Amino acid sequence: MIGTDLLGIEDLERESIERILHTAERMQEVGNRVVKKVPTLRGRTIVNLFFEPSTRTRASFEIAGKRLSADVINFSTDSSSLKKAESILDTARTLDAMDPDVVVVRHGVAGVPKRIADVLSAPVINAGDGAHEHPTQALLDLFTVRKRKGRIDGLTITIVGDILHSRVARSNIYGFIKMGAEVRIAAPPPMIPAAVETLGVKAFTSLREALDGADVVMALRIQNERLSGTYLPSVREYSATFGIDRETLRYAKDDAIVMHPGPINRGVELAHDIADHQHSVILDQVRNGVAIRMAVLYLIAGRQERSFG
Amino acid sequence: MIGTDLLGIEDLERESIERILHTAERMQEVGNRVVKKVPTLRGRTIVNLFFEPSTRTRASFEIAGKRLSADVINFSTDSSSLKKAESILDTARTLDAMDPDVVVVRHGVAGVPKRIADVLSAPVINAGDGAHEHPTQALLDLFTVRKRKGRIDGLTITIVGDILHSRVARSNIYGFIKMGAEVRIAAPPPMIPAAVETLGVKAFTSLREALDGADVVMALRIQNERLSGTYLPSVREYSATFGIDRETLRYAKDDAIVMHPGPINRGVELAHDIADHQHSVILDQVRNGVAIRMAVLYLIAGRQERSFG
Amino acid sequence: MIGTDLLGIEDLERESIERILHTAERMQEVGNRVVKKVPTLRGRTIVNLFFEPSTRTRASFEIAGKRLSADVINFSTDSSSLKKAESILDTARTLDAMDPDVVVVRHGVAGVPKRIADVLSAPVINAGDGAHEHPTQALLDLFTVRKRKGRIDGLTITIVGDILHSRVARSNIYGFIKMGAEVRIAAPPPMIPAAVETLGVKAFTSLREALDGADVVMALRIQNERLSGTYLPSVREYSATFGIDRETLRYAKDDAIVMHPGPINRGVELAHDIADHQHSVILDQVRNGVAIRMAVLYLIAGRQERSFG
Repeated sequence: MIGTDLLGIEDLERESIERILHTAERMQEVGNRVVKKVPTLRGRTIVNLFFEPSTRTRASFEIAGKRLSADVINFSTDSSSLKKAESILDTARTLDAMDPDVVVVRHGVAGVPKRIADVLSAPVINAGDGAHEHPTQALLDLFTVRKRKGRIDGLTITIVGDILHSRVARSNIYGFIKMGAEVRIAAPPPMIPAAVETLGVKAFTSLREALDGADVVMALRIQNERLSGTYLPSVREYSATFGIDRETLRYAKDDAIVMHPGPINRGVELAHDIADHQHSVILDQVRNGVAIRMAVLYLIAGRQERSFG
Repeated sequence: MIGTDLLGIEDLERESIERILHTAERMQEVGNRVVKKVPTLRGRTIVNLFFEPSTRTRASFEIAGKRLSADVINFSTDSSSLKKAESILDTARTLDAMDPDVVVVRHGVAGVPKRIADVLSAPVINAGDGAHEHPTQALLDLFTVRKRKGRIDGLTITIVGDILHSRVARSNIYGFIKMGAEVRIAAPPPMIPAAVETLGVKAFTSLREALDGADVVMALRIQNERLSGTYLPSVREYSATFGIDRETLRYAKDDAIVMHPGPINRGVELAHDIADHQHSVILDQVRNGVAIRMAVLYLIAGRQERSFG
Repeated sequence: MIGTDLLGIEDLERESIERILHTAERMQEVGNRVVKKVPTLRGRTIVNLFFEPSTRTRASFEIAGKRLSADVINFSTDSSSLKKAESILDTARTLDAMDPDVVVVRHGVAGVPKRIADVLSAPVINAGDGAHEHPTQALLDLFTVRKRKGRIDGLTITIVGDILHSRVARSNIYGFIKMGAEVRIAAPPPMIPAAVETLGVKAFTSLREALDGADVVMALRIQNERLSGTYLPSVREYSATFGIDRETLRYAKDDAIVMHPGPINRGVELAHDIADHQHSVILDQVRNGVAIRMAVLYLIAGRQERSFG
């Protein structure tokens, strides 16, 4: 069973993941209707509390909430104006006193959603916290892989990029391993976390070796500003060594799919034409994200509700 | 009867205040349901026209409107881009031409909501104007005190802080006096308005004297930037002299409640632990704010509506 | 028939314009009800994708969508953060993958809505692109003139101001000519596009001549920053030569109406008292804008829907 909050994949059991994926299948049917709306969360209030700028994730949660007939309140605050943990918690407590049914939190600092969840009555969904976790992204990635490949168990997933600073990578590593996949990571050494093997992944500094026989190639977004340190490669060098193009993709399986959490730096993580390649499932990820967020909102905010129309 | 607009408490009669508080009691029942929504204002449009940044008050009006099934349009404009009164009024007239049922206005300059109300067809609710009034804040404070104390008449209310620049203080002074309370203010001399006694309050420069026997202690938010003038104390000095802590609270009645309009500067107006003290009703104020705003929106925008489900 | 997208008036046939105006008449009846809402687009998602700051147009589309019971998602991005066409298209593709029923696009660069429409599954409505077109503005202007004058055919329309940089002028020139009006433009020579007569208009550099016998006087907003070039007049000079006041208005017909797309620079394009003159229809334009946008959203997003309640 899924708990009160969804703070990360690390603490989620496999059967909870299965339940979310199963619920998302039903939610996706709603998205295929002309009237893409069910009354499931009518009269429930969802607060999007974003301390970090976001457009895609906020829009995805907002659309998901509205398709369930919930009221969605957006509340974006510049982190800089709320630097003190005390102010952040007071802001969260204030919104909590308005009796929302779920609060979706994004913050640039790891652990903030957990600290907020500790003081709130309302359940909290982590929409990304620093380099910690981004659980709904991992869930939509699992959902996308399972829909394309029919299974997750036994597949080889290669995650390429700045693993060290990526909450997407962390959540996906937990998720794919729990679901029985083999997870490989490929990155320049300074972007590989220390002792990453303890998470159950294999680390590679050669893209070709990491891609060999892969079913899924997941490229991460590179933050250009990170590529300026002493030990880190330039953007050009990164792209030449770890960018995915048609040539490097040949090392993966013939039917390998290409994923990216977006937004893409075309010509950096992915060659210009790869995002639109027939094996790219990047827009499927976005589409599936709405279904996953509907599922999670339903399972967390709709607890007292029985029927699902 | 409540008029067409709600611009301040100064012009509100006691029986109008009673009616709003009574309506808010019924609205609060809606907030306690699983489906926190009534169809009362379905098809009505509420425009939040905020010329001053706000998160809490805007969210409170938005949630209140949505719980009444109204459509809520947020319209935030930086005051700086609309400095001329002419531009402000033209913006308001433009929104008015889209036939909203009520326009909620916040502006940094006193009197702007009144000037807007004078030119608009739609009723206007003042959500705070300069150092003038913030009527829904005072109404939620009255509501909170009455719920906690069972009455307002005959209570002693001590308001502590920058009375001179506070619209919250002004509206509360009018409200509590109309409802039969004794109102005291406590502040450093430069923060006490000239001839404030003509409003019917007693002014103190000693916190202890002001708190003696108080039923309600209301601390105001201190704007740090105001504490840098020649005659004004430093933040540290203010906190030592007018900050509420467990020790100073002993001068009030044993069952005194502590209020604050938020956001709190912990360690300045209130000692770090006071906001979470058992006698603090700060989160109740926030919760009651939604019920008060539902009541005001219902009474103002729902005039042609008969039933209240 | 109106096509899938609405990108400009240039490509719209007269009968499509007629159909939109006719639909807007029925939509306006909805706006006159107490419950200003029909279930026509329930469960449909409208995305407002604004790359240029806008308050009036965004609010108008949002109110129009909500009166049709659609869910409206606002998505405002500073153009500066998305300078590359590739990023703009990827952002649009991402939103498209969330299955909106229509995407309303505003961008500072001419042609962007067309490029977005080319890659999207969802229909696109142009809400203004650079100096190219602003079709819903022209439609609401046509609607306003027809309501006031009973017809468009045979009328004389004089558009005054910076024609060269105005998408409003361009769209209105196409629209009024298609509908059988005579269109004149009046501006200082540097603000008249080269070979403008090929559009079928008559160009004047004398305001008096241009206004002679006009049924409709449409003033355009002047961008102050444009009035600082070598060949351009100062604001004061512009106002003296091309500003509309009671005196110049005498050259038009006695029952001429005065229009302006807003926001007005009072004292520049229009004398201070003209906007509130009995012949001014500026607020009617705003009101009619909601009805026109409801009509366009209904015709484009409601294709699979039969009934209109």
